[in-house]
Amino acid sequence: MELIELCKSAKSAKYEIAGLNEREKNAALRYIAQKLIDNSKEIIEANNVDLDNGVANGMHQGLLDRLRLTPERIEGMAEGIRQVADLDDPIGITLSDSKRPNGLEIEKITVPMGVIGIIYESRPNVTADAFALCFKAGSAVILKGGKDAINSNMAIVKSIRLGLIESGITPEAIQLIEATDRETTKNFMQMKDYVDLLIPRGGAGLIKAVVENSTIPVIETGTGNCHIYVDESADQDMAVDIIYNAKTQRIGVCNAMESLVVHESIAREFLPKVYKKLAEKEVEFRGDDESCNILPEALHATEDDYYAEFLDYILSVKTVKDVGEAIAWINEHNTGHSDAIISENRENQEKFLQGVDSACVYVNASTRFTDGFEFGFGAEIGISTQKLHARGPMGLNQIVSYKYLIRGNGQIRE
Amino acid sequence: MELIELCKSAKSAKYEIAGLNEREKNAALRYIAQKLIDNSKEIIEANNVDLDNGVANGMHQGLLDRLRLTPERIEGMAEGIRQVADLDDPIGITLSDSKRPNGLEIEKITVPMGVIGIIYESRPNVTADAFALCFKAGSAVILKGGKDAINSNMAIVKSIRLGLIESGITPEAIQLIEATDRETTKNFMQMKDYVDLLIPRGGAGLIKAVVENSTIPVIETGTGNCHIYVDESADQDMAVDIIYNAKTQRIGVCNAMESLVVHESIAREFLPKVYKKLAEKEVEFRGDDESCNILPEALHATEDDYYAEFLDYILSVKTVKDVGEAIAWINEHNTGHSDAIISENRENQEKFLQGVDSACVYVNASTRFTDGFEFGFGAEIGISTQKLHARGPMGLNQIVSYKYLIRGNGQIRE
Repeated sequence: MELIELCKSAKSAKYEIAGLNEREKNAALRYIAQKLIDNSKEIIEANNVDLDNGVANGMHQGLLDRLRLTPERIEGMAEGIRQVADLDDPIGITLSDSKRPNGLEIEKITVPMGVIGIIYESRPNVTADAFALCFKAGSAVILKGGKDAINSNMAIVKSIRLGLIESGITPEAIQLIEATDRETTKNFMQMKDYVDLLIPRGGAGLIKAVVENSTIPVIETGTGNCHIYVDESADQDMAVDIIYNAKTQRIGVCNAMESLVVHESIAREFLPKVYKKLAEKEVEFRGDDESCNILPEALHATEDDYYAEFLDYILSVKTVKDVGEAIAWINEHNTGHSDAIISENRENQEKFLQGVDSACVYVNASTRFTDGFEFGFGAEIGISTQKLHARGPMGLNQIVSYKYLIRGNGQIRE
Repeated sequence: MELIELCKSAKSAKYEIAGLNEREKNAALRYIAQKLIDNSKEIIEANNVDLDNGVANGMHQGLLDRLRLTPERIEGMAEGIRQVADLDDPIGITLSDSKRPNGLEIEKITVPMGVIGIIYESRPNVTADAFALCFKAGSAVILKGGKDAINSNMAIVKSIRLGLIESGITPEAIQLIEATDRETTKNFMQMKDYVDLLIPRGGAGLIKAVVENSTIPVIETGTGNCHIYVDESADQDMAVDIIYNAKTQRIGVCNAMESLVVHESIAREFLPKVYKKLAEKEVEFRGDDESCNILPEALHATEDDYYAEFLDYILSVKTVKDVGEAIAWINEHNTGHSDAIISENRENQEKFLQGVDSACVYVNASTRFTDGFEFGFGAEIGISTQKLHARGPMGLNQIVSYKYLIRGNGQIRE
């Protein structure tokens, strides 16, 4: 189908989807979850084509594993959809209600976005997740997945569309852009007349391309240069445990720690301790002069290292003279995702909470908690690193809009 | 000053402005209001240069009037700033607060945007208004006004900066881009590393240029192709009064009515009535075949007429067979600003409220009420016609962001 026809189909479907009630949406989601399981064989066959292509193209083992679907992973996908069905409906909630002196009643209610576009990279489970969240939020969705997973995505979308039809709902609520060339992706980003919101999910390169080319409003997600600052007053054992967790529990995720900032007065005592613990995972330290003097094993950090999201067993290290310098340093180098202070000093904790300009600012906890489930929102569509509309984990309540309903009895403006 | 230096100055000022408390902000705003009055003579002299240039360039009378500053208008500007000082502080408000099973306390609070950019056209009072709103919302502001008002804007900004300095606050909280060439404006839209939000205020051409060129998140404002649908069951006298008000009370504003949609079963009775009333202002009707048959004076509407924001004594007219067709027609042609139904039928009222995809949907009232003051928000920075972040009138509470503060005692993720 032509891109523009596909966008028009989504736009015309959005009114039907917006009109579904909670019961209808949940029943359809549960039906679709089962449909995916019923169609596992077909989906896995399609996935095998992608895997074969991946092997032929020399895709490395980690990526092949992300791409692979098994009956268990399809069950996991279905369970994810059922969990979305269990979440509260975010639509039609009255946010405020007032009566003006002239008698006009002004009610503000949540409404669907309309059509949400999502551009993402390889993992095919995003296809089902993103559909479920957008559908429950009353919106149609247009998906543009990675080339590597195209056969898997087509099979998943086919099952979802079948599930919609059999639920008596238009299948046009989900659209998959099957063309995988760059030109189509670029054209998609210009479909402002049909798409209300565009969310890129993937690496920094993808996000940059979307921000630079899209005329559709964008929410940037998921680049995390997360810092942990260890204050003079820190409980150092706690600091070591938190840093070990934030840096090494899962290195490839956006809420993993990338940079350590440490108060100079404890650096000589603390850095060897944390270095020793992280040596268990062979973490490479890249520090400033002061930390390199203390840790002979550390490499000298470049300016770029301090801006980097390594997603690897690498940590940049910077010493500072106080919490104020730590805050300024972090605000200069972070990506607005998640940053933490480890401190027993109440005043410094509050300074840090107020001063650091990030979606999530932590005291004495790991940055790894920035996640929809950990926050109690349920599944998330991404973690926003911008300040417009939504910040931090975006669950159902963050992918809706609102409108004003104004009821009068003949009021005119004087 | 170089554009990039100016953006850097705003970015470094944002931390100081974010740290001001309500009392400090209000005191500075009141001081600045007085400063503008004290400097009236200087501001009016600068304004005279703009007016002379306007006359020399053949600017027409309406625009010259919008550009002109008088002692009364400067008093009005100062009063606008004082009114912003009187509004509640939108910063530091706890939006939610929860404790997770693992003991993490997650608090969501409002925070400033940071740096807000505003690109606007001729009226110089926007300069003072926009500063006051952004400052009260804890943000630094970068203003790019129209070439025609550059001398007036420079004089106003000079007074505001002086007022800030004398209040002990960094004058870098307000920046005026003095270069008026297109290249500078285009470069400004790329200053994503320094500017958190960009709001264009002006005509459709300006807004389109910003949406197409900006890499900074944008809120679109102020294009209004507002519809009024007159239902079969309407109180026709009420409908005539509301339409007369919405169409003619002020033609050049975004919440003025541009298009009439009428139920075919009452068209023959209703159209002559409304035509007669609007003839008092010589409003030109451009209709479909059916309405032209009824109104011999009407012109035939083109497809473009139905998409047009006339801002003139012109009205497009369309007959429909029921409320469903009215809703579909409006959703296809409107700009998502404000639309109204005139109807005594409760079911049709609700269908219209739910079905029309606009920021403000009215029952039995004039679209002219879409306005920050009329909604009880106080001064507004614009009326958003997009669904991301803010929709409809944007007051202080719509130009802030939020962040999560997470307090723990050593939590790590399993």
